[in-house]
Amino acid sequence: MQQIYLDHNATTPLRPDVLEAMLPYLHTHFGNPSSVHRTGRRAKQGLEEAREQIAACIRAKPAEVLFTSGGTESNSLALVGAARAQGPAKTHIITTPVEHSSVLACVQALSREGFSHTLLPVDAEGRIRADDLAAAVRDDTALVSIGLANPELGTLQPIAACSRLTRQRGLVLHVDAVQATGKLALDMEELGADVVSLSAHKIYGPKGIGALYVRHGTGLVPVLRGGPQEREKRAGTENVAAAVGFGIAAVLARDELAAVSARLTELTARLWTGIQASVPDVVRNTPRRQCLPNTLNLGFPGASGEGLMMGLDLAGIAVSTGSACAAGSVEPSHVLLALGHDAQTAKSAIRFSLGRDTTRQDIDRVVAVLPGIVERVRAAGQTSGRE
Amino acid sequence: MQQIYLDHNATTPLRPDVLEAMLPYLHTHFGNPSSVHRTGRRAKQGLEEAREQIAACIRAKPAEVLFTSGGTESNSLALVGAARAQGPAKTHIITTPVEHSSVLACVQALSREGFSHTLLPVDAEGRIRADDLAAAVRDDTALVSIGLANPELGTLQPIAACSRLTRQRGLVLHVDAVQATGKLALDMEELGADVVSLSAHKIYGPKGIGALYVRHGTGLVPVLRGGPQEREKRAGTENVAAAVGFGIAAVLARDELAAVSARLTELTARLWTGIQASVPDVVRNTPRRQCLPNTLNLGFPGASGEGLMMGLDLAGIAVSTGSACAAGSVEPSHVLLALGHDAQTAKSAIRFSLGRDTTRQDIDRVVAVLPGIVERVRAAGQTSGRE
Repeated sequence: MQQIYLDHNATTPLRPDVLEAMLPYLHTHFGNPSSVHRTGRRAKQGLEEAREQIAACIRAKPAEVLFTSGGTESNSLALVGAARAQGPAKTHIITTPVEHSSVLACVQALSREGFSHTLLPVDAEGRIRADDLAAAVRDDTALVSIGLANPELGTLQPIAACSRLTRQRGLVLHVDAVQATGKLALDMEELGADVVSLSAHKIYGPKGIGALYVRHGTGLVPVLRGGPQEREKRAGTENVAAAVGFGIAAVLARDELAAVSARLTELTARLWTGIQASVPDVVRNTPRRQCLPNTLNLGFPGASGEGLMMGLDLAGIAVSTGSACAAGSVEPSHVLLALGHDAQTAKSAIRFSLGRDTTRQDIDRVVAVLPGIVERVRAAGQTSGRE
Repeated sequence: MQQIYLDHNATTPLRPDVLEAMLPYLHTHFGNPSSVHRTGRRAKQGLEEAREQIAACIRAKPAEVLFTSGGTESNSLALVGAARAQGPAKTHIITTPVEHSSVLACVQALSREGFSHTLLPVDAEGRIRADDLAAAVRDDTALVSIGLANPELGTLQPIAACSRLTRQRGLVLHVDAVQATGKLALDMEELGADVVSLSAHKIYGPKGIGALYVRHGTGLVPVLRGGPQEREKRAGTENVAAAVGFGIAAVLARDELAAVSARLTELTARLWTGIQASVPDVVRNTPRRQCLPNTLNLGFPGASGEGLMMGLDLAGIAVSTGSACAAGSVEPSHVLLALGHDAQTAKSAIRFSLGRDTTRQDIDRVVAVLPGIVERVRAAGQTSGRE
């Protein structure tokens, strides 16, 4: 049975053309980019070309792009590295309750080191207001960290409004753009953030590589220490082949963005219309406007999201109950709880996240099988699940 | 011109059979191992098989093997993570002055957080004595960190003697085994260390993946935070294909260890004998006993190592002046300085590091061209370099 993969926010398949570009760096140009001899210089060249490609895609300077091992490391380096760089008088962090666990876990760790933090309120769609950010700023605020696109909901935050404020107030703004990479046009000048996390495996690139945009002049204390790689901000032998794959994947994503985005918007709408017409009492958690083109988070009151996900998996359809980083957890999604859902409702949600290879037939198949699965899971919940 | 690559301590080419094993995880089994659906479970299976392979190669339990992004991250997690886990009363670290920069940089960073440290004395071969370790232990010692094989010299440290002591005294022993991986039989029971850093790209595996052995019961505070991956010790989507490559590379290295090691010992001896016979005043920095089978670090008084490396590169031979992580640096090697060399002597060294594909013809070619290069570089130094 052909799998219908609708979990592209968790990870995406590597594009064949990206793998093709990586292969020479996996077998021929295997050098350590820090080595000064020819083999090393050839590897370095690939690494720097990839950096230029990524910089061009986000309208940044190549020197402002650091390679990391992925989105989580980018967020750790951004949060811990930028907060510590602000000096001992700046010990307050502003973020939101709907951030990815890699952001919130760093905020918690910094709290144990004496930092305090404010979580901005979010509305029923998970969105903050720039006014609330303005009100939360204190004299000791070191850092503001806001995700551009929420991984579970697809909700976009008003980053440009936030960055106007952080720039006025001389604050460092970190934006977790991992889930937005390749799905939205990213322009560092327009965005106005100082530090931005990016990841390759969400955009049909390889796992194990991410990047951190660091605006020229922004202080950053390293998290991984050792050699002088990545402008002394991130030690360790560079993952050259993966960086090359990231570079190509970024260019392809940018070139195809308008076309893919239009297709995904249409397919996601078709999915919603189909489910809404065929499943009683479905609740839409993803906003209708200002959201990613590919993400649809739905609640099915009376059913467990886990049960729905399993039922769909048996039918050959891969979806998730929330962020993959929290999959398998018995806890309800912290994002849905922050929206004001109770635990039961939060646990009834599943996330569909479409990708460039998703077809109309895939969507129609989901719409065809989902009602029966919801009915069975709801029935099972009524007989056993409620004690 | 075919390149003769003698810089295997910097990095190694990916084995074709390792790449072959990785490819299905780069295109077909692309899932996020944290995803609960079939695509995720298939990726998870590959990841866990790789963990079992690595554990079997080092006689550890799979649950004691954590994947990281490489040797530098393993060292950061070991140093910072294990030191912080010992509690506020334990703030003293014992290490050596010949460690890799990723160890020493973490020790320096911890010093800025209030930790103190002792650098054990080393002899002219860069070797410590277990007695000196015994004398350095204090009531507030949190951690001992000693590299098994020195990357620049190949010198092996008496780890078993050290671990007898650390176990007696209830101390956590970290061993940086990145340069020993695949070159020596590694048996966690015999070694007796509590935390051990490993890396794939030194053993014909991919870049961007390393591992940290953490003995059951050893405390470790995470450095990269977020999701619950890697037993909550290392967040972030796992680099599955690279982990699979690491697993296979480890198995192949272990299976071929005796044969490859014997060949490399013979070839390295041939290289030394040839150079000693043809280059006047060559100084051997690598010990004759208790060293890696593939590493030969030589000093050429009156010549600059940088010049020799460049001359050899033009002749199609890749060597290094020391650790790749410090390549391009104008500073002399901290390892050679710790051996008691003056800056001038330290800067006259080059490191040959042989690999499984190195042939007798490669060695004979080096022996044939090196004397002329040394002569030219020494002559250039006499006319211009000494002011």
